Amino acid sequence: VAATDHPPLDAAEAAAWSTFERAQERLRSVMARELTQETGLSDADFQILSVLASAYRGRLRAFDLRCELQWEKSRLSHQLRRMEQRGLIRREACADDGRASDVVLTDAGREAGVRGKCARAGSIRRHVLGPLGKERLAALADLAMDLDMGLRDTLPRHPPDED
Amino acid sequence: VAATDHPPLDAAEAAAWSTFERAQERLRSVMARELTQETGLSDADFQILSVLASAYRGRLRAFDLRCELQWEKSRLSHQLRRMEQRGLIRREACADDGRASDVVLTDAGREAGVRGKCARAGSIRRHVLGPLGKERLAALADLAMDLDMGLRDTLPRHPPDED
Repeated sequence: VAATDHPPLDAAEAAAWSTFERAQERLRSVMARELTQETGLSDADFQILSVLASAYRGRLRAFDLRCELQWEKSRLSHQLRRMEQRGLIRREACADDGRASDVVLTDAGREAGVRGKCARAGSIRRHVLGPLGKERLAALADLAMDLDMGLRDTLPRHPPDED
Repeated sequence: VAATDHPPLDAAEAAAWSTFERAQERLRSVMARELTQETGLSDADFQILSVLASAYRGRLRAFDLRCELQWEKSRLSHQLRRMEQRGLIRREACADDGRASDVVLTDAGREAGVRGKCARAGSIRRHVLGPLGKERLAALADLAMDLDMGLRDTLPRHPPDED
């Protein structure tokens, strides 16, 4: 399908979409800034700490971490190197496959993740729950659920640049 | 305020938020992938082309572009360098301030932006308008508008790393 085959959105559709897009973008910026101010963590740090914190023993193969995050290989390596230098994670050879590597949460990383979660909860209260209230947040989640159902089968199970 | 002063979200609040966050993240990945498949543009390319396309004569000061995008200086320079190499934009000294630089859309950049817009419209139709329909998209935009009202005063007017 050539890109130009798609009919443009009508004015109301385009306005609705851009309102949603702008709010998403602002929310993301504000929350990232608050996270960094309160904890020193970037959004990327926090994403990785969160995924590892919910893994068994805080340990995941690098490949599985990458599937979870849907990041490119070079981005993840770069990010992990910096987090290792800061003592938030360490890398270990995988017990059952010496060529593969595991990413392991350190105690400092686990604590940082908990502080990040608290800070994030504060941002959500201030900027989402506060303005919308419980019921409209539930309405937002219902709409998001309907979007997500269709998207679930669209994404590949493998991370972006795996052979 | 210490990060740990924030009370955690209750289970329903946390579930609603994570549903919304996951849907946002999937939507972003799917749309970025479709844009690249259909036009060869990354999301970052498309954002810049869109901002420039709506500027008078397709021209903006680098600083104003950065305010609009809320990107860090190094990220924007790196991105602009690559877009210049691909002939999508060019940089020119600013007419009324020789030390400042303008970013200018080339004809190829303008065409690429139009192709990107068509591809993006297709993604929005397929993944948002299709599943939700016009009325529920309007409901989503209403919720987003309420979020956005509160956020508008929270973000600084200046880009992230300006003195």
